[in-house]
Amino acid sequence: MDRKTLVNHIRHRKSCLCVGLDTDPSKIPAGMDVLSFNKAIIDATRDYCVAYKPNLAFYEVLGAKGWDILAETVEYIGKEHFTIADAKRGDIGNTSGYYAKTFFETYGFDSVTVAPYMGKDSVEPFLGHPEKWAIVLALTSNAGAFDFETLMAENKPIYKHVLEKCSSWGTSENTMYVVGATRAEQLSEIRAIVPDHFLLVPGVGAQGGNLEEVMRFGMNEDVGLLINASRSILYASSGNDFAAATSAEARSMQQVMANFIS
Amino acid sequence: MDRKTLVNHIRHRKSCLCVGLDTDPSKIPAGMDVLSFNKAIIDATRDYCVAYKPNLAFYEVLGAKGWDILAETVEYIGKEHFTIADAKRGDIGNTSGYYAKTFFETYGFDSVTVAPYMGKDSVEPFLGHPEKWAIVLALTSNAGAFDFETLMAENKPIYKHVLEKCSSWGTSENTMYVVGATRAEQLSEIRAIVPDHFLLVPGVGAQGGNLEEVMRFGMNEDVGLLINASRSILYASSGNDFAAATSAEARSMQQVMANFIS
Repeated sequence: MDRKTLVNHIRHRKSCLCVGLDTDPSKIPAGMDVLSFNKAIIDATRDYCVAYKPNLAFYEVLGAKGWDILAETVEYIGKEHFTIADAKRGDIGNTSGYYAKTFFETYGFDSVTVAPYMGKDSVEPFLGHPEKWAIVLALTSNAGAFDFETLMAENKPIYKHVLEKCSSWGTSENTMYVVGATRAEQLSEIRAIVPDHFLLVPGVGAQGGNLEEVMRFGMNEDVGLLINASRSILYASSGNDFAAATSAEARSMQQVMANFIS
Repeated sequence: MDRKTLVNHIRHRKSCLCVGLDTDPSKIPAGMDVLSFNKAIIDATRDYCVAYKPNLAFYEVLGAKGWDILAETVEYIGKEHFTIADAKRGDIGNTSGYYAKTFFETYGFDSVTVAPYMGKDSVEPFLGHPEKWAIVLALTSNAGAFDFETLMAENKPIYKHVLEKCSSWGTSENTMYVVGATRAEQLSEIRAIVPDHFLLVPGVGAQGGNLEEVMRFGMNEDVGLLINASRSILYASSGNDFAAATSAEARSMQQVMANFIS
């Protein structure tokens, strides 16, 4: 999906919500399988979101059949939503080229999350595929983000080096960043470095970020945000009414977003 | 596999060779499938190596059937060699827990390569599994290693921060490091930080590192090295004699190693 189409979906649905399909077999209603659950979640949220992000770990753990479920999930999502393989791959040269092929061609995703540790040769193979995107980890929202991502090198944290260097390798048409920032000050600093890029923001919802703050300080003129919620939407209710609860939760986030998206 | 067993295999075979199973369908003899090729390579190298390292990208790109081939490959390797899932996974908390489960339980690997960017919560879920190992990327052997891994923070490069912090999270019984260092000076500096840990050293062989230099400056009293070769062994010949050529290449590396392993 190219940028223009993504932005059109965002403006049309007045939403930049991304639903994280971290489908945990131990948390879904009894008797339901992962694929049926995913389909029910997709049906319940389709009108309120613009993107879906299956988390690969939850599919890989099922063995080969998990990959079939992943393929069927992507097919069920269809072409009207942006798809993100949350795989956090990071390797080099021809190896990363195979990862790009896996997610872009074999499974048809629009984008893959990529770990930057190994540098340019771990990011570049994901670029240069028309209408496909690398979403590079910059600042994540977990406690461990303070171990290496925020170490200061040459007067700025490592994650700012990642934003700057990756932006010289790709463009705002093929690169996005994972930015688990929910504080105004951080978001403003990040926007100063990457004014045009889309940011994928986790940590809003179950992980506690402030949705309004992210909209207010993270948006650019193309909105430029995909805000992810996983558990708060997937497991909004553990009862038979789970689809209705999921729908209501997605809608309530969308309504906050609509106040900011003209 | 626990450390004592691994060290026994190394001393018995007088080898610390790891064979990287980066099996590229476009490079194997015509008419041969990936699994048959892997089995032929394993048969040809079994006596000269102590570890096998399938590179996940080459299996994932085949879709669900690639994971079945991976499982059959691991089963064929058996219990007398240390197995490494070269997956470079890196996520947090329960997600990384599922990756650990995938590789340690679903596929029965002894170890997984792990990307440290996201910090403690991306490494810790791979620790605490008896006889299983996290092999953390520290200094890699690609050009991109100079983008972030060698940035100086608090007077030392990021990769040294990784070595120090990870060593406070795990032990030399459950953590190893990827160290693509082949120069004496670098290896000595790294050994000063992690004297007891095993190091997985890529970049020797087709990528051009000096095997004798690595043995001389990288060994500790338990040998403490796994030296990987992939392409130079897998594709030693493209003809029908490929297995014999592979065997000869593995044996020639083993013989250099034998000079250092008493």
